[in-house]
Amino acid sequence: MSLPKTVVGVRIPGSEYDISVGRGLIQSAGEMLRAVSSSDRVMVLSDSQVGPLHLSALKQALKSAGARVIEATIPAGEEHKGLNTLLPVYDQFLASHIDRQTPLLALGGGVVGDMGGFVAATILRGVPLIQIPTTLLAMVDASVGGKTGVNHAVGKNLIGAFHQPAAVWIDPAVLTTLPPRELRGGLAECIKHDIIRDAGGFEQLEQNIHRALSLDLDYLQQLIAHNVAIKASVVAEDPFERGVRAHLNLGHTFGHAIETVSGYAYSHGEGVALGMAAAANLAKSLGLIDEESRRRIAAVIAQARLPVAGLKLDIDQVVEAMAFDKKVKSGRLRFVLPAPIGRAIIRDDVPVELVRQAVQSLV
Amino acid sequence: MSLPKTVVGVRIPGSEYDISVGRGLIQSAGEMLRAVSSSDRVMVLSDSQVGPLHLSALKQALKSAGARVIEATIPAGEEHKGLNTLLPVYDQFLASHIDRQTPLLALGGGVVGDMGGFVAATILRGVPLIQIPTTLLAMVDASVGGKTGVNHAVGKNLIGAFHQPAAVWIDPAVLTTLPPRELRGGLAECIKHDIIRDAGGFEQLEQNIHRALSLDLDYLQQLIAHNVAIKASVVAEDPFERGVRAHLNLGHTFGHAIETVSGYAYSHGEGVALGMAAAANLAKSLGLIDEESRRRIAAVIAQARLPVAGLKLDIDQVVEAMAFDKKVKSGRLRFVLPAPIGRAIIRDDVPVELVRQAVQSLV
Repeated sequence: MSLPKTVVGVRIPGSEYDISVGRGLIQSAGEMLRAVSSSDRVMVLSDSQVGPLHLSALKQALKSAGARVIEATIPAGEEHKGLNTLLPVYDQFLASHIDRQTPLLALGGGVVGDMGGFVAATILRGVPLIQIPTTLLAMVDASVGGKTGVNHAVGKNLIGAFHQPAAVWIDPAVLTTLPPRELRGGLAECIKHDIIRDAGGFEQLEQNIHRALSLDLDYLQQLIAHNVAIKASVVAEDPFERGVRAHLNLGHTFGHAIETVSGYAYSHGEGVALGMAAAANLAKSLGLIDEESRRRIAAVIAQARLPVAGLKLDIDQVVEAMAFDKKVKSGRLRFVLPAPIGRAIIRDDVPVELVRQAVQSLV
Repeated sequence: MSLPKTVVGVRIPGSEYDISVGRGLIQSAGEMLRAVSSSDRVMVLSDSQVGPLHLSALKQALKSAGARVIEATIPAGEEHKGLNTLLPVYDQFLASHIDRQTPLLALGGGVVGDMGGFVAATILRGVPLIQIPTTLLAMVDASVGGKTGVNHAVGKNLIGAFHQPAAVWIDPAVLTTLPPRELRGGLAECIKHDIIRDAGGFEQLEQNIHRALSLDLDYLQQLIAHNVAIKASVVAEDPFERGVRAHLNLGHTFGHAIETVSGYAYSHGEGVALGMAAAANLAKSLGLIDEESRRRIAAVIAQARLPVAGLKLDIDQVVEAMAFDKKVKSGRLRFVLPAPIGRAIIRDDVPVELVRQAVQSLV
C-alpha cells in the first residue's frame, strides 16, 4: 500500500535524506522503514502525550514489516527537556542489544524530536534517526536540519549536537489531534520562513492562513511541503549554522529571551511571534522596511491568532536575558531583520537603546 | 619563544588540524592558542590527578597570551566517566558567558580527553576542542580521531559523539610524571599500530621499546610522532568508523570484554595487550599468521611488561560480554586480525568455539 505523498529531498555534504509529507503516512511506516533500513529492530522514543494517540498505529505498521520495537517514553513538556530525563532512556535502549545500524524513531513534537535526536546523535556515538513530527512546529522547523539538544538551567538547547536524520516522515492527519495553541505556534515558523525567503509565499499566507486554522488538510499538506522546502534549502546551504542559517533565527533572539523570562509561560511559537513583531519594529526604526511592511508582518501574525503585543514582562530582564542567548557572537547581540519582506540580513551593530525600544513596543 | 616540535597534519573531509609534538610545549600554549583561536577566553577541563601537576603551567601560558581561563575539574578515574560527572561541568562553563568560538582545552589522560571532547561536541552544539593529552595512551590514541564519550552501566563509551579537535598539543616531558603502569598501557596501542600498519615499525619496536620504558624522551618524541601519524592516516581514511578505521580495534573486542568483566581491574592498555595476544592466537588458529609471527607479537607485548597470560576471569563471562560490545554489527562478532604483521583484516565468521579457545589461551 502506498499513499500519495510529497517528497522534498535534502542534500547536505555528507548527508542526503528525504522528507515525505502525506496523509496516512504513519500507517505505511513499515514500508517507509524498509526503504532506509534493513535492521531487524527499531528504537521508538515518544512522550506521555503523543504516545497514547499515535504510538500503537506506528508500532503496528513497524511490526508488520518485521521490525522488533524497543520503546521508551518520556514525560511530556518542555520542563522535562534535560539530560536527567534522558538517563533512563539510554538505560532502556542500551539494555536491548542495539547496534549502530538500529534506527531511532522520534515520534512527537519538538521536545521529543530534539531529545530523540540527541540520543540518536550520542548513543553508540550515533545511530540513524528518523523524525516523525506530530506538531506543525516540529514538522516545519525542528524535524529538518539536524539540530538536536536539551535545555540547561542557563537557557534552552545549550547542550546538543548536529545530527542529520536519515528520513523525516510527516503525516498531516495527526494535526487534527493537536491543541489549537500548538497549531498556531507552528504557523509562527511558517510566517518566518516566508519573511526571510519568499515574498510571494508571504502574500499566499496573507490570503490563506485561515485555512490552516480551520484544519484544511489539503492546504496544510501544501503549506508543510512549502515550508520544509524553504527550511531544507537554508540548511543545505549552511548545515552547521556558520552563516545564512542564522536567518532562521528571525524573531528568536527576542523570542528565546521572552520564553525564558516568562518561565516558559509563553510557548516557543508565541515567543517567536512576539520576537518577529519586535524585529519588524526594529527593522522599521533602522530604516530597513517601511511602515506598510511592518504593518503587514504584524497583521499576518495576528491573523494566525498569535500575540504581537500585550507583553507583561520586565523589559530590562528580557534585554538582559538576550545577552545569554547562545547565538551571541563574542559579546555582540546579533539580529536577523527583514530587509524587505522575503529577504533577511544580519546586524550586530544595533544600539542597546533601540533593542530596548523594540521590546518596549510589545507591551 | 618557539621550541622545536614535530607537526603531523590531519586532513579529514570537513576538518583539518595539526598534531604538534614537542618537549616544553605546554609552556608555549599561549602562542599555540593564538595560532588557532582569537577568543578572549578559554575553557579548561582537567581532573584531580593531572590538575595539580600541570594546570598552573598551562594557565600561566594561556594568561600570558591574554586569554581568560574558565576552569572545571572532574574527579580522576574511569569510575567517574559518566554523564552525571558532566552535569556540574556544563553548569560551570555555561554560567561563564562562553560562545561558540570559545575553545575547550582538555588537559589530562584518555578519560579527560573523551569527556572534554564530549562536552566540546555538545555544549552550545559544539565548540572548538584542543586536546592536551598527558598520558602516552591518550597521546597516541584517544587524542587523535575525534571520538568522544562517556561510559554507561552496560559498557564503555556507549554515549558519545564524533567531534574532531581544532588542534592536539603533545608535550612528551609530562610523561616523566606518569605512573609506569600507564606508560605501559600507551605502549600497547603503539604495538597495535605497527601490527596493523607497519611491519618495519614493528621491527623498530622490537629493538627499541625498552627505551620507552626508561623514559628516553628523544625516543618517546619519535615514537609518539610515528604513532599519531599512523592513527591520523587511518582516521583520515575513515573518519566515522564505517570501514578501515575498525582496524584500530585490534585486540579491543577481547580487551573491552576483559576490562568490563574484571570491573576495570585491568586497565585499558592491559585489556588491549591481552586482547592482542588473544587475536594473535586466533589468527594463528585461522591460518592467517605463522607461529613465529604469533610468538613475536606476544614477545613484544611482554617486552613492554604488559600481560599476555595469567587471566583470572570466567571465560564464559568474557565471551558473553563481547556480545555487548558496541562494535557488534547486527548480531555478529567481528574480529580484527593480523594477516600478517603490518596488515589487518576483519573477520565476522569466526566460530564461537575458536573465540572461546582464544580467550582460554590467556589463562
